[in-house]
Amino acid sequence: MYTDLPEEQLRAYRGAVREPVDFDRFWADTLAESRAAGSPPRVEPVAVGLTAVDVHDVIFSGFAGQPVRAWLRLPRAADGPLPTVVQYAGYGGGRGHPLENLLWAAAGFAHLAMDTRGQGSGWCRGDTPDPAAAGPEVPGVATRGIGDPRTYYYRRLITDAVRAVDAARSLPAVDPARVAVLGHSQGGAMALATGALVPDLRAVVAAVPFLCDVPRAITVTATHPYREIRDYLAVHRDAEDRVLATLSYVDGVNFARRCLLPARYSVALMDEIVPPSTVFAAVNAHAGPTELSVWRYNGHEAGGIDDDAAALRFLGAHLRG
Amino acid sequence: MYTDLPEEQLRAYRGAVREPVDFDRFWADTLAESRAAGSPPRVEPVAVGLTAVDVHDVIFSGFAGQPVRAWLRLPRAADGPLPTVVQYAGYGGGRGHPLENLLWAAAGFAHLAMDTRGQGSGWCRGDTPDPAAAGPEVPGVATRGIGDPRTYYYRRLITDAVRAVDAARSLPAVDPARVAVLGHSQGGAMALATGALVPDLRAVVAAVPFLCDVPRAITVTATHPYREIRDYLAVHRDAEDRVLATLSYVDGVNFARRCLLPARYSVALMDEIVPPSTVFAAVNAHAGPTELSVWRYNGHEAGGIDDDAAALRFLGAHLRG
Amino acid sequence: MYTDLPEEQLRAYRGAVREPVDFDRFWADTLAESRAAGSPPRVEPVAVGLTAVDVHDVIFSGFAGQPVRAWLRLPRAADGPLPTVVQYAGYGGGRGHPLENLLWAAAGFAHLAMDTRGQGSGWCRGDTPDPAAAGPEVPGVATRGIGDPRTYYYRRLITDAVRAVDAARSLPAVDPARVAVLGHSQGGAMALATGALVPDLRAVVAAVPFLCDVPRAITVTATHPYREIRDYLAVHRDAEDRVLATLSYVDGVNFARRCLLPARYSVALMDEIVPPSTVFAAVNAHAGPTELSVWRYNGHEAGGIDDDAAALRFLGAHLRG
Amino acid sequence: MYTDLPEEQLRAYRGAVREPVDFDRFWADTLAESRAAGSPPRVEPVAVGLTAVDVHDVIFSGFAGQPVRAWLRLPRAADGPLPTVVQYAGYGGGRGHPLENLLWAAAGFAHLAMDTRGQGSGWCRGDTPDPAAAGPEVPGVATRGIGDPRTYYYRRLITDAVRAVDAARSLPAVDPARVAVLGHSQGGAMALATGALVPDLRAVVAAVPFLCDVPRAITVTATHPYREIRDYLAVHRDAEDRVLATLSYVDGVNFARRCLLPARYSVALMDEIVPPSTVFAAVNAHAGPTELSVWRYNGHEAGGIDDDAAALRFLGAHLRG
Amino acid sequence: MYTDLPEEQLRAYRGAVREPVDFDRFWADTLAESRAAGSPPRVEPVAVGLTAVDVHDVIFSGFAGQPVRAWLRLPRAADGPLPTVVQYAGYGGGRGHPLENLLWAAAGFAHLAMDTRGQGSGWCRGDTPDPAAAGPEVPGVATRGIGDPRTYYYRRLITDAVRAVDAARSLPAVDPARVAVLGHSQGGAMALATGALVPDLRAVVAAVPFLCDVPRAITVTATHPYREIRDYLAVHRDAEDRVLATLSYVDGVNFARRCLLPARYSVALMDEIVPPSTVFAAVNAHAGPTELSVWRYNGHEAGGIDDDAAALRFLGAHLRG
Amino acid sequence: MYTDLPEEQLRAYRGAVREPVDFDRFWADTLAESRAAGSPPRVEPVAVGLTAVDVHDVIFSGFAGQPVRAWLRLPRAADGPLPTVVQYAGYGGGRGHPLENLLWAAAGFAHLAMDTRGQGSGWCRGDTPDPAAAGPEVPGVATRGIGDPRTYYYRRLITDAVRAVDAARSLPAVDPARVAVLGHSQGGAMALATGALVPDLRAVVAAVPFLCDVPRAITVTATHPYREIRDYLAVHRDAEDRVLATLSYVDGVNFARRCLLPARYSVALMDEIVPPSTVFAAVNAHAGPTELSVWRYNGHEAGGIDDDAAALRFLGAHLRG
Repeated sequence: MYTDLPEEQLRAYRGAVREPVDFDRFWADTLAESRAAGSPPRVEPVAVGLTAVDVHDVIFSGFAGQPVRAWLRLPRAADGPLPTVVQYAGYGGGRGHPLENLLWAAAGFAHLAMDTRGQGSGWCRGDTPDPAAAGPEVPGVATRGIGDPRTYYYRRLITDAVRAVDAARSLPAVDPARVAVLGHSQGGAMALATGALVPDLRAVVAAVPFLCDVPRAITVTATHPYREIRDYLAVHRDAEDRVLATLSYVDGVNFARRCLLPARYSVALMDEIVPPSTVFAAVNAHAGPTELSVWRYNGHEAGGIDDDAAALRFLGAHLRG
Repeated sequence: MYTDLPEEQLRAYRGAVREPVDFDRFWADTLAESRAAGSPPRVEPVAVGLTAVDVHDVIFSGFAGQPVRAWLRLPRAADGPLPTVVQYAGYGGGRGHPLENLLWAAAGFAHLAMDTRGQGSGWCRGDTPDPAAAGPEVPGVATRGIGDPRTYYYRRLITDAVRAVDAARSLPAVDPARVAVLGHSQGGAMALATGALVPDLRAVVAAVPFLCDVPRAITVTATHPYREIRDYLAVHRDAEDRVLATLSYVDGVNFARRCLLPARYSVALMDEIVPPSTVFAAVNAHAGPTELSVWRYNGHEAGGIDDDAAALRFLGAHLRG
Repeated sequence: MYTDLPEEQLRAYRGAVREPVDFDRFWADTLAESRAAGSPPRVEPVAVGLTAVDVHDVIFSGFAGQPVRAWLRLPRAADGPLPTVVQYAGYGGGRGHPLENLLWAAAGFAHLAMDTRGQGSGWCRGDTPDPAAAGPEVPGVATRGIGDPRTYYYRRLITDAVRAVDAARSLPAVDPARVAVLGHSQGGAMALATGALVPDLRAVVAAVPFLCDVPRAITVTATHPYREIRDYLAVHRDAEDRVLATLSYVDGVNFARRCLLPARYSVALMDEIVPPSTVFAAVNAHAGPTELSVWRYNGHEAGGIDDDAAALRFLGAHLRG
Repeated sequence: MYTDLPEEQLRAYRGAVREPVDFDRFWADTLAESRAAGSPPRVEPVAVGLTAVDVHDVIFSGFAGQPVRAWLRLPRAADGPLPTVVQYAGYGGGRGHPLENLLWAAAGFAHLAMDTRGQGSGWCRGDTPDPAAAGPEVPGVATRGIGDPRTYYYRRLITDAVRAVDAARSLPAVDPARVAVLGHSQGGAMALATGALVPDLRAVVAAVPFLCDVPRAITVTATHPYREIRDYLAVHRDAEDRVLATLSYVDGVNFARRCLLPARYSVALMDEIVPPSTVFAAVNAHAGPTELSVWRYNGHEAGGIDDDAAALRFLGAHLRG
Repeated sequence: MYTDLPEEQLRAYRGAVREPVDFDRFWADTLAESRAAGSPPRVEPVAVGLTAVDVHDVIFSGFAGQPVRAWLRLPRAADGPLPTVVQYAGYGGGRGHPLENLLWAAAGFAHLAMDTRGQGSGWCRGDTPDPAAAGPEVPGVATRGIGDPRTYYYRRLITDAVRAVDAARSLPAVDPARVAVLGHSQGGAMALATGALVPDLRAVVAAVPFLCDVPRAITVTATHPYREIRDYLAVHRDAEDRVLATLSYVDGVNFARRCLLPARYSVALMDEIVPPSTVFAAVNAHAGPTELSVWRYNGHEAGGIDDDAAALRFLGAHLRG
Repeated sequence: MYTDLPEEQLRAYRGAVREPVDFDRFWADTLAESRAAGSPPRVEPVAVGLTAVDVHDVIFSGFAGQPVRAWLRLPRAADGPLPTVVQYAGYGGGRGHPLENLLWAAAGFAHLAMDTRGQGSGWCRGDTPDPAAAGPEVPGVATRGIGDPRTYYYRRLITDAVRAVDAARSLPAVDPARVAVLGHSQGGAMALATGALVPDLRAVVAAVPFLCDVPRAITVTATHPYREIRDYLAVHRDAEDRVLATLSYVDGVNFARRCLLPARYSVALMDEIVPPSTVFAAVNAHAGPTELSVWRYNGHEAGGIDDDAAALRFLGAHLRG
């Protein structure tokens, strides 16, 4: 069943996300500090038994220079610097297993799949810790350090996402002028944020992005991971203002307002995890050109492999042209 | 939590599956008739936008010569007839999308992913009908035609599985002497049956195979798809003998007793869908050499990508040697 | 809790079901072909140990002349051709057991309870197969052959329903001028379709009819059996147009627009299976006179035995008068 | 899935139900007092629109002479005093609607369907209050007055059940020498108790009887209504001895030990509500001859209409001979 | 997720609760009769091992003079008649254990925690029976005697609540001029009714009060205890008018319209048990001054300990001033 | 229903928990280092509006000297150094609100309720962060840093628990010779560990302690928080040895073997969260004298307030004597 407003209202929905006055400065400072603390990525080949794709274990400098893992997959037959896709994982997952997720390399792209700090124990595995002072929190990362934007988990993860692009661009296999970012759900949120913070990328692909119009999201869905924030507020009853203020620094709507890149979004009208209105809030705020797939009968899986096929076409147009 | 007997009892468990006296004749006749009704496969290339893998749409003659679809994926860079993996899908799924499931081709194998007649609308899509007189049935295919082994759904699907191997071997890209079969759950059941019915294959990979020791399975799990059979018997209260007789013609334990090929199995001790004892019943009955991964903390996903990695190694040893 | 629009909006709700231009021709051709393929029903008495009711096992010619079962129950004490009720079963059920469902015969009607092809393994049993080429489908019958109205399951079942009336009228115990049709949920959908396709019946009773205003139904409920269609579209993402076109040939709203018979409907405002708006869409479109019971506190059971009591009164007025 | 011990252990299972030393005196006194307080039943015809069955509204004197309702259904065509079935309802239900439950009258029996005091608002309706001082209780009746056998709800209901037989036998339509008692679940418990307390009945039919071997039942199932007792003990942690003592006065095993009548039992091996071992405890303790149907694939519905058909045959043999 | 109307609509919501013409007379007569039947409370000290609080076991005369239990907790160090809080329990609970609920005595109030007749076997225990003729009912007390306001359970419980205040005021430790009433959910409903029926109290605290705007409540929530009433109406389909008439005599909105006392309410926007609109209906009808806490992210626990802290402040102001 | 072995097997159950050779050294070093890094507690009075109890906000030095919060509650009327109870919270909870949990102070004890680092957002709130490098983890703390005993979350929490005792003993209101530790579930695990690591305490109270016989626990329950460890192992399939090795350093059975203090345990036979066998494994290993309450009909709430009452008696005997 539809989980949100009627479709015609969705198409016009804009949300009402607050924008902190120091939003741009916050992120400029954050990135500058983390870039200053960074060092070049380390890349080690991994023997996985494939003949068409080579896989490398990457460690790059993320937030505050902290080490973050990734897999770099390269088509074996390819020559010269490649058009490149940097991918971010959905909530709970990490970079996964080297043998997973061969699509982008099989399609001729260099593919950097970033790990997710402190997650990576859910639907696919990860290997990166989140070295941070965690305040009282609901199980999961969505409320970790939520009392202040500077300590909030997603400040760190978004910085990792930007720094993954920096790292990719420093690799010889990657053509730094032809890089796009891509993700589903939390991964879509990271792609969108990165697309706003790194203006010279080529394109953004955000399938059912998480972390958009959060003040509405936490009141219209009862499922995780938005539920974590609701549960936190149910116990810390005096924290609403502080928490909403923190969230405004990472809300995808605020990134969409700043993102001039062409973006492909998808939204699912039966999504119980990421309410469709919150995706429309981002799409309708997006500064650059957008393409949108509306999946009327899908839940959070959205277009699934059909979204991938469309992304392949979209990225081909933007990265190969 | 563990869903079945303690591990030491599992390792010794043998089950008590009935063996029909005409089991071998039943299958010999079935295959002979279907082979007689068959015609050569049709193979059409599909433009999917990959650079490392070529995908072809295959229609081959399955049970009674009925058309069955498959995807054939070939590594673009490969020369000459290839070692080949024929794969069968889990319950509810079909051959999926051409862009899915690139592992085996990326590893240098020809890969034929067979569609599943009348399913293909669950976790991945399919395109093959099941043209058959369906008696009263519980939603799903597990009780379709269950009143008689000749009308039972799995007679048709197993025949398709064997004929998929026949079809693969007739293709120029395939080295007919180096073919293995592989599947998870229902796909594992198909792989095991095919391994028993086509003795000159090289190897079988069956992850948490469905359809083994069915009389026990339907009394120790409450989940689907075994639940379908239980639900049928709960309504058709006079049908127990007839149903169990039918099932004995497709029970994986009876195929394992006849399968001389090397086989890699996996079993998960927290599997709620395929009770681990029923997998051990097959492993312990297997006539050929076996390798077994016991996943103590997994449910029906079992080893997942780790099973795939192990299968890659196992198939490399048996198909490349 | 209420599961749909507020009651005042329900009472005005009309839906927006498409009407195919060839709807009438489609059904005229379908019935003509099936009638041409038919043969007279066979009727065998069954010894069930009752003293007030005689039960007969009936096989009649349904869709394409295919054999369909039914129970014929006759009050033993009755003389001459009787007023007659033809009843259709809810989703999952069949004609049941001869000892069930004695109400209508005990009330002095001839009672033909039609079996449901390919179902009959859920809440009550059946004995009729559905010999048909089933395409990829979600477990259940709601998506069987849904790619084309000619192959769709409900084309066959509606034809069976009409042919059950034809068969009943040919029996000596039945007064062909005094026949009504009745059903709950799927059975109500069959009664409504039959009432539109056989204009010289006396009355229709449709309790919480299924299969009305389907495009809305699949977006406002998450439960089965409408869920089957939604699940199909979630996987076959390119099939929406084709599927909705097929469904328009069997939508109860299109039958209601053509049904000139007096009809008794019931609807339940807490129904999670058949959304109340979809019933109102049929009621408000019904061409003939209607009577409607609105059960404010019931789910899909609706009026239950109170609906039966009302139907008894309604049918008495229309069949005995 | 099986919900209790393996079948061979079930067949030998005897339980360990305590027997109060004053069990027989308790019931003799209870019945004597209630019989002394009684008055003749009142019987009023009800116009329900049936032609084969007449229905009467009965008020008889139950526990302490309190008025209890019932429906009396008589086959219209029958002559003279009839063999009679007194039926008791399952938990939550009452005597239901006059139009329900026509099987026994249609089969030529007088049929008295007793109402259930204070229930009758669940799966079928009732009309009889339970005028009693209820102590602290878990919602439902299973712990009402459970602190003492004299105040316990089931003392009252069992007395009603016995007095329903007394009332039936006083009616002209009933042959007092040919009466049997019948019920499912709670109704089966009442039939069994009545069969022990009224030795000159002809037979007992108890399908999956509730209230047998209660000390075990409350530790091996988590479902209602046994759950009520468990929930009571979870809060009233000091009440275990008192509660188990009370329960021993109504435990079906203690009645079975005293029941010399032929009895037909049924049990379901997948019953989650009445654990099969508790039924076997009664069957194995039954003093008279027993017949047992073991339904291996059913839950609490057990044999359903197939149990009814078997009961019809069983009662025919015992009441018509 | 929010469980009811948007917040701005909630703030304006008034409901449409019927007011019986004899509402005031009904309650005046009820209280007069019960007061006439009463006798002075009995108070016995209980040895519980505390040093700062003394606990007494109280038996007072409730409805119709029937004995009702309570705990009286007194701060040991206090002198002279004390400001007093009379507290009522939520649905399912009773007066609990003497060691529970020490807050109010530790804060210097005399604290009378009334038991709940016939409940007290859920989240905390009770010791008081409900001696009454219960008609057919859904498990629980919400439909006990619902066919008539004079036999309805809540007539008795509200009378107990008023009489608990009478009893408290008769005790030497209590200053009769400084008494307030307090409760959560069902307890809040009792506090509100008592505040309307005993005009010389000082204040009312009602957290998420149950039993307000019941006609709406039963259509917008599917959870217990409102579900009991819905379930009753689903079976007793002819009882709607009678049931709604009965409920109008105990509806909190009708008490709020009459309550001139200062009241502190709280409401939770994610409450699935007591729909927030029904609380606003009471708040917006309240005759006296009100204070309202709106908990946006809480379910039925509402403000929990934060509500207690606010109540402590509120009662301090009204009872100590 | 019972959730584990039959009671007689439970009473004899011993488990098979590994004991690391350096267990004692590990803890001696850990405590020595943290004590070396510590500083005296800070204690601030909190104005909460109570008259019988004073509450203080405490910050003490926990693991590695990191600041940990607690509430200190003191009976206002008491003189001189008091017998003292240090309490630890269950999983998800923190020190809660100052107005909660007044029992121990009302009974005349000094009461230090320790906060739980990084939790405190579930059933009651907390205020203490967990500043640590968290590796890939399942939401929750049970797998935080589980790859090595030195980085594991419970190393830190157990150290906090010991240091809370150190802090309490340094306060003037506390008699350092009369201190006991107490907790439920996770809190019971902390109490048991502290009782083993601080030999001069007076007593331990552990209700349904978590973290005992963990290797068994994770295979016999499917619920949280043990589920977290199972879920971790389901993804990190190669980590079993490392994880079980880490867990052996914090397993309550290893602490019980070393704890010479008198201990009161409780266990619940219907506990789905902490399997009863795992509690018996600790009880049966306990080196000192034990008292055990077996709650046969309770889940994880176990004895609840009845456990508290028994603990009050037990602690009175051991702390006041």
